[in-house]
Order: sequence, then C-alpha cells, then structure tokens
Amino acid sequence: MSLLAVGTVAFDNIETPTGRADMVVGGACTYITLAASYFVKPVRIVSVIGDDFPNDTLSELKARGADLEGLQIKEGEKSFFWAGRYHNNFISRDTLDTQLNVLADFDPVLPESYRNSEYLMLGNLVPAIQMRVLEQLEKRPKLVALDTMNFWMDSALDDLKAVLKKVDVLTINDEEARQLSGEHSLMKAARVIHQMGPKNLIIKKGEHGALLFHDGEIFFAPALPLAEVVDPTGAGDTFAGGFIGYLAKTGDLSFANMKRAVIYGSAMASFCVERFSVDHLKELTPDIIQDRVKQFAKLVHFQI
Amino acid sequence: MSLLAVGTVAFDNIETPTGRADMVVGGACTYITLAASYFVKPVRIVSVIGDDFPNDTLSELKARGADLEGLQIKEGEKSFFWAGRYHNNFISRDTLDTQLNVLADFDPVLPESYRNSEYLMLGNLVPAIQMRVLEQLEKRPKLVALDTMNFWMDSALDDLKAVLKKVDVLTINDEEARQLSGEHSLMKAARVIHQMGPKNLIIKKGEHGALLFHDGEIFFAPALPLAEVVDPTGAGDTFAGGFIGYLAKTGDLSFANMKRAVIYGSAMASFCVERFSVDHLKELTPDIIQDRVKQFAKLVHFQI
Repeated sequence: MSLLAVGTVAFDNIETPTGRADMVVGGACTYITLAASYFVKPVRIVSVIGDDFPNDTLSELKARGADLEGLQIKEGEKSFFWAGRYHNNFISRDTLDTQLNVLADFDPVLPESYRNSEYLMLGNLVPAIQMRVLEQLEKRPKLVALDTMNFWMDSALDDLKAVLKKVDVLTINDEEARQLSGEHSLMKAARVIHQMGPKNLIIKKGEHGALLFHDGEIFFAPALPLAEVVDPTGAGDTFAGGFIGYLAKTGDLSFANMKRAVIYGSAMASFCVERFSVDHLKELTPDIIQDRVKQFAKLVHFQI
Repeated sequence: MSLLAVGTVAFDNIETPTGRADMVVGGACTYITLAASYFVKPVRIVSVIGDDFPNDTLSELKARGADLEGLQIKEGEKSFFWAGRYHNNFISRDTLDTQLNVLADFDPVLPESYRNSEYLMLGNLVPAIQMRVLEQLEKRPKLVALDTMNFWMDSALDDLKAVLKKVDVLTINDEEARQLSGEHSLMKAARVIHQMGPKNLIIKKGEHGALLFHDGEIFFAPALPLAEVVDPTGAGDTFAGGFIGYLAKTGDLSFANMKRAVIYGSAMASFCVERFSVDHLKELTPDIIQDRVKQFAKLVHFQI
C-alpha cells in the first residue's frame, strides 16, 4: 500500500544529561520515513530542505526506500534547524534555537505520482500546510493520521480544528489531549476529540506508554523500561512512522490490528531513544523488531 | 493465611478540584484493611487512635473482618489528622494541616495472637516503628511488604535502609525510586533497590499504572482510564491492601501470581479513587472486583 509522509527534514543540535550531538539529521519526516520503511516501501516524502543537506544522507534515505520526488531542495537556502537541551528527566526540554530557514515559506507540492496515496501521515507542522497536502490528493486516502502539538493549539487552533475534521487518527500527548478537549479525564477528552473528527485518538505518554481510543474502545500499550535513554528526540515521530507503516503494510484497519500497530510504533520508538538522532533506526532488522514486539507482549502478560 | 496490617487510622479533610469532604475516615491502615478484607479475613490491625474515633466506624471495620486487638485507643487524646488540597491534575497536592496527636509517641505493641502472622503489610509510617513491629514477630513472615515515601528518605534514611534489609516487597512511586537509588532509569533503580534488600519492587505511577520488578523480570500493570476521579487519597494504600490480600489468600509467591496480585491491587485502587474517603471500598463484591480485573486484562490485550 502506498504511504505518504509529510513533515520536516532538518538538522538538530541536541544536549541531554549524558551527552550531546551537533548538526545531526532530524525532522519529523525523517523519523517517520525511517521507521515506516521497515514495513512498507517506498515512503513518499513531502518536505523541504536547503542546499546544505548532505547528498550522502539523501542517498541513504533513498536506499532505505524513501521516494524523494516530493522533497523540495531550495538552492542558496538553509535547512530547518532546531537546538534543544533536555532536563534531567529526559522529558522536559528547553529550545535553545529555532531557525525556520526554508520552512518559513514552505508550500508543499505533491507530485502527480503521489496523489493516489492510500495512507497519509501528516507529521507535526503548521496545520494550514497539513491541510494543503490533503487538498492535493485526488481522492481521500484509506487512512489519514495527523501529529500535532500544543504550539499549534495556542497559535492556530481554528486551522487545526479544520484539518482535524478530515483526519482518522490523531496522535498527541496527554497534556495536549487535555488542552485540546478542555477535559482532564482522558476518557472524556477522547469523547470530545472524537467529535472533532478523528475516530481514533492515540495519546502518547512517553515512558508511561500510549493509549488508543477507538470508537468507544480503549487499548493501553506500555512503554518498555530501558536501562539507558540516550536521546528522546523524534520518539513520537518514530512511533507514528511505525504505526502507520504497519497499517499500510497490513491494510487492516480493525481495532485488533490498530492495537498491533500501536505496539509496533512503540517498539520503533523504544529503539529510537537508545541512540542519538536516527542512528538506531538505520541498524534494525525485521527479526530485531519482532523480538522487541515480543518483549512488549511479555511485559503486560498475566493470566486471571 | 494470616495478614497483619500496620499504619495510621485517621481523620482527613480533603479538597479536590471537584469537591470536598471533612473529617472523613482515612489512614493507610484503614485503606489497606478494607481492600485486603475482600481477599482474606481477619486482617490484624496494629495502629493507634484517640477517643474521638466513632464507635460505629470501629464496629464497621470489625464487621468487615478487621481484628482490632492491636488497635490502641488513647483516652483523652485525639486521632491523627491530615488536611490536604489536590491541584487540578489530581496528583500534586498541598498539605494544609497535619496533627500527629496520638501518633507522636506511638509505640506499636503486637498482641500475642498476632505474632505468628504470615503476611505483613507495613504501611507508610516512621521506619523505626515499622522495624519495631518486625522485631516483635516470633518468626519471619512468609512475606513482608513495606510502603514508604520521600519524607522518610529525607528525614530517616538510615532507619529506612535498616528496615528495607528485612523486606520482600517495597512499594514506592517513580520519583521515590529514583531518589532512593540515585538512578534515573527505573531499570537501574530496581537493581540498586534489590541490593538494599527487597527482591520485589513495585513502582506505583498513579494514572500511569505500576511496574513490578521481580528478580530480573518486569511486569507492567496499566491503570484503568476512569471517566471521573473524585479523590486520589489512599489509592496507594488500597493498592497495597489488594496486592497483599490477594497474595495472602492464594499463598503463592511465584512471579505469575505476584503479577495477578498487582492487577488485583490496581483494580482495588481504581475503585478507591472513584469516591471520597473509603466510601467505595465498603460497597464492593467479589463479582464487581472480578469484572474490573477483566477490564484490566482487556485493556492491554493484543495478539502478535
């Protein structure tokens, strides 16, 4: 099944309590694409970079199954750049620098060959840009998933609500679910958000796992306790890539399969945080992924 | 199997974002006893109250299976009192008032009939008092569980470490596990805490569930998403009561059965928070509890 991924392709400077990495490859679309590439190929990319992006990295993305036809390369401009420092809990973080660069006037243009995509992952971006992508599809995809964040709830709520009407799966964290719905109880928040459009809500809780709300049903996926977290950057995007990649591979949108997809997404995210940048996402094999999924199953297994 | 529960029996004033309750029955020992009473009777209580405690409440505890022989009643004195106000997240809270009263010079004395107890739940209390109880047992119980909190890590760490050497199961929250071990990773924290004595560590994460670390193995129990949380007071004590009550009933200390005990504890805690004080813990039946345990099983079920 054809998968289209939209989001940033960027450089990051990352400081964590245990180390740092400068000018490493980042961006939501990069994490989504690499995670999804273990399940489905090609992954059609819609993004924008400057002419400062290494050719090697682009070749590597292509070799791993990325279709770069929709990746705009702006001559004489610089790629999006983010610098951040994580606190001791590896969760909260300070943004040290944000340089929009090519992202400032990004206008996504879908190549003709992308317009029939059946699965669409709208990575965290300006809601109006997410909408622009949707509008260029020749028919409604089989599944549209959208990731967003509190920043857009604060600054572009109307645009976000407009695009949410066209979305099947929304992925946000617990505080964002509370903010978007105005409800503290996540059960009630899910009901309010279902009314906004998405029939499926995935609440990402980082080290506390994830909740899937699907049409009155709930599924709780744990996070795998890890001996060492190196860099949490991109974990949510990696989750999203694994989730939609698995759905695109299997073509099954039942609740039972969505639950499996949440587990595959969680497994991919658990790899992501074990190394800086996308490093670990380049080293996996289907066997390694399957072993980790089995660890998730073992972690929550009990008999009554 | 015989279960001994140690902790406070008290009055609480509780304010939450949605309501308040004044001079209601509280205390770790009360919650532990009521939760455990659904699994094993009698529950032998060691605690202290003043002469201000209603006879009705004592009769009710007795009718529900509490053995009150070890409950000291101090004439002319007042029971322990705590007043607190929860923040909007229902997790963090401010203590508005603490009156130790009878607790100030509490010296636990075990009745002769208690000294052969096979299961011991040391509720959150001064570590030296927890130790005093242990010292009066004629032989080591089959299982000793201990609940504590950051306050004792700050103020009585040596005493806490001394009692931990004699404990099989420690229940604390995630921040306390990090503080006690000096490790941020809960995997590493568990290893350090195993070295301190407890072969089993239960990390309570409130609405994020609980982790059981058992001799190199890990189990993750979810929390049940609830439409309405009314009062989180006593949830951890209720968890502990359900956990040890189930173990005392079944007499099976295997990892498989400890996992079940964590689920039963989590189920009891989920009832606790749905009403103020111990109200909901007085209304349950084995069928209601079993139905909720099935909801926990359904919540995490997936097939790969």
